[in-house]
Amino acid sequence: MGPNRLHGLTDGVFAISMTLLVLNLPHPHDSAHLAHDLLQRWPSYAAYLVSFLTVGILWIEHHGMMSAVQQVNRRFLERTLAFLLLVSIIPWPTSIAAEYANRGSQATTAAVLYAGVMLLMGLSFAMGWRYLSGHPQFVVARARPALDAGMRRATYGGLVYLLAITLAFVSPAASFGVDAAVAFYFALSRAEVPGLVAQGGEVEAS
Amino acid sequence: MGPNRLHGLTDGVFAISMTLLVLNLPHPHDSAHLAHDLLQRWPSYAAYLVSFLTVGILWIEHHGMMSAVQQVNRRFLERTLAFLLLVSIIPWPTSIAAEYANRGSQATTAAVLYAGVMLLMGLSFAMGWRYLSGHPQFVVARARPALDAGMRRATYGGLVYLLAITLAFVSPAASFGVDAAVAFYFALSRAEVPGLVAQGGEVEAS
Amino acid sequence: MGPNRLHGLTDGVFAISMTLLVLNLPHPHDSAHLAHDLLQRWPSYAAYLVSFLTVGILWIEHHGMMSAVQQVNRRFLERTLAFLLLVSIIPWPTSIAAEYANRGSQATTAAVLYAGVMLLMGLSFAMGWRYLSGHPQFVVARARPALDAGMRRATYGGLVYLLAITLAFVSPAASFGVDAAVAFYFALSRAEVPGLVAQGGEVEAS
Amino acid sequence: MGPNRLHGLTDGVFAISMTLLVLNLPHPHDSAHLAHDLLQRWPSYAAYLVSFLTVGILWIEHHGMMSAVQQVNRRFLERTLAFLLLVSIIPWPTSIAAEYANRGSQATTAAVLYAGVMLLMGLSFAMGWRYLSGHPQFVVARARPALDAGMRRATYGGLVYLLAITLAFVSPAASFGVDAAVAFYFALSRAEVPGLVAQGGEVEAS
Repeated sequence: MGPNRLHGLTDGVFAISMTLLVLNLPHPHDSAHLAHDLLQRWPSYAAYLVSFLTVGILWIEHHGMMSAVQQVNRRFLERTLAFLLLVSIIPWPTSIAAEYANRGSQATTAAVLYAGVMLLMGLSFAMGWRYLSGHPQFVVARARPALDAGMRRATYGGLVYLLAITLAFVSPAASFGVDAAVAFYFALSRAEVPGLVAQGGEVEAS
Repeated sequence: MGPNRLHGLTDGVFAISMTLLVLNLPHPHDSAHLAHDLLQRWPSYAAYLVSFLTVGILWIEHHGMMSAVQQVNRRFLERTLAFLLLVSIIPWPTSIAAEYANRGSQATTAAVLYAGVMLLMGLSFAMGWRYLSGHPQFVVARARPALDAGMRRATYGGLVYLLAITLAFVSPAASFGVDAAVAFYFALSRAEVPGLVAQGGEVEAS
Repeated sequence: MGPNRLHGLTDGVFAISMTLLVLNLPHPHDSAHLAHDLLQRWPSYAAYLVSFLTVGILWIEHHGMMSAVQQVNRRFLERTLAFLLLVSIIPWPTSIAAEYANRGSQATTAAVLYAGVMLLMGLSFAMGWRYLSGHPQFVVARARPALDAGMRRATYGGLVYLLAITLAFVSPAASFGVDAAVAFYFALSRAEVPGLVAQGGEVEAS
Repeated sequence: MGPNRLHGLTDGVFAISMTLLVLNLPHPHDSAHLAHDLLQRWPSYAAYLVSFLTVGILWIEHHGMMSAVQQVNRRFLERTLAFLLLVSIIPWPTSIAAEYANRGSQATTAAVLYAGVMLLMGLSFAMGWRYLSGHPQFVVARARPALDAGMRRATYGGLVYLLAITLAFVSPAASFGVDAAVAFYFALSRAEVPGLVAQGGEVEAS
């Protein structure tokens, strides 16, 4: 089976997950101090930005992985579904983090939940790389040498959230700081995505 | 008419239905025991997982069916719309099941509603196979022998929900258990989708 | 400019509009008579069904029109945006109709709003046909003779809602009946969409 | 990397952002004067219309830019993500503007927020043009002379919102008037999008 329709579902889930985040932005009703009420909800904007960036960067990385895939089977589709489940769930820990980020003892729970979902998302992405690494026939020949680098990058990217989970018990703010740092690190990183196939031989364009 | 644009609408409805499920996940406000309040809402997570899996698997199966379709007409589009109506409705019984799954006598209603929507969804998918079976000219030649197997698989997959509906009157928990079992059975099943056309001759790629 | 990307936006708006309807389905909280509370909200289900069908049929008809379009310009894109605005707004009159359909005097307002949006949607679709009719160079040659029939069909389909608006002042129920009749008439109609280009020469597939 | 999949994500985000605007339309509950209650919420409809138009026109302009792009890299994807973040956020200032547009002193905040988001969206679109202008190898040869015009058009279109922000402190109504004027100016403008590549040589169609 060709990968084309998988792209449609994947792009749809990413686009919707990214866009549903907007429903969590604050809308104070009947406010007599609108500017003040909006500004004091700053954790909502920070959470929006970090989640949008994280999901967006992940879309780029996933896009890079898929550009090397020439064929998929049912097992690979199922792994992709598990990954998409975690992508689609992102607005949920984001809205909880936005509300509880600066609420004392409950912030630990929110930070663990947020980093926990991110950890699972990262690992399920790494499992996609791993499956391809074990089934190189699904990948265009010249991208195969990059599969292990892709798996490592995804695994390390995911495991950083273990640090965020641990930190949450000491300082939720530091935990969210790690989440943000991951997003900005990947956003600013100069490294091209491993396995990303250049124009001339791209599967979609062939 | 070629099937290409039908893919766009179908993938969109599937992606949105899967992603809207997130709106039903619990968000306790002003909680002083966030971890506890989140954990006691476990039926929400179970319902999310089962619905996401069911819709995701159905997308794979529908994808398999469509990969063999080379042409569509208005009648087939209308059957597909009926199927998409039932896919798009899934977040509704899911949210009701999540709230009422462990609420004594009301759980029966929730379980009947959930399994009833799943039953209709399965049967409307089977009707798509049946239409193709009666109009084999819409299907690429080498996939035609598999049409009856596809129809049977979809029909049996749907009819299991009759058992879930019946069980709901005895034990709603057992009824939801059947719903979950269907999702995991198809997720773990090794059988490739009948009619799924292999890479070389796929319609989309030609 | 080719019409390909317009398909992506159009299919997205249709898919989302159809799927957002689910947010209006009733979810009684803390109900002690769930079955009863769900059943007495039957206008919600009727409204859901009629709106989903109407938008779905319109997608088929619009798809038929677009399958004959080989090129678009900025004017045509803008007309399509006006049409999509009305498609995307459908969940709004639907939710109001669902709440007020059987609430005495307010039902007239709900029925006028519902049929009014449908009227505008139908007319804006007819304007798309009309633009193509006046610019036949945008349409593949053998579909040009069908343009006038398409415009008439869309115009008549839209104008029926004038009857629904008028009836709303006498009997809101009769007005909603007309809305439903339009949906079912087009759903069951045997006529292929005018201008629908058959497989061999379809623009998308070429 | 080819631009094809970027189209899928972009169209998805635009379609969802445009369609989520519907969630902000007024739905008075248990109203005894439905027509009156709906009519007095007129700023909601105005905000809906202006936001939908603005995002729709921007989609046309972005579509025009992308039709000239033959290749993308990670830097360009990241700029596009920043642009999509601002597109996806539009329903938020729209809903706040709809509630506070005619509420005395709070209207200034709402008008600044609305025009501020629009300003950032316009500038991030201009940055996309600017990146292409500095990397003409990503653009098909015959569209390169138009890149500077595109960047100027996007920059000027964005900077008008500085006027709207300033005006908000004097008259929020005038500020919203400027927002509306920008939307209608671009909607009615006869100028084709700079860089828009005509059918024969379009990247998508090749």
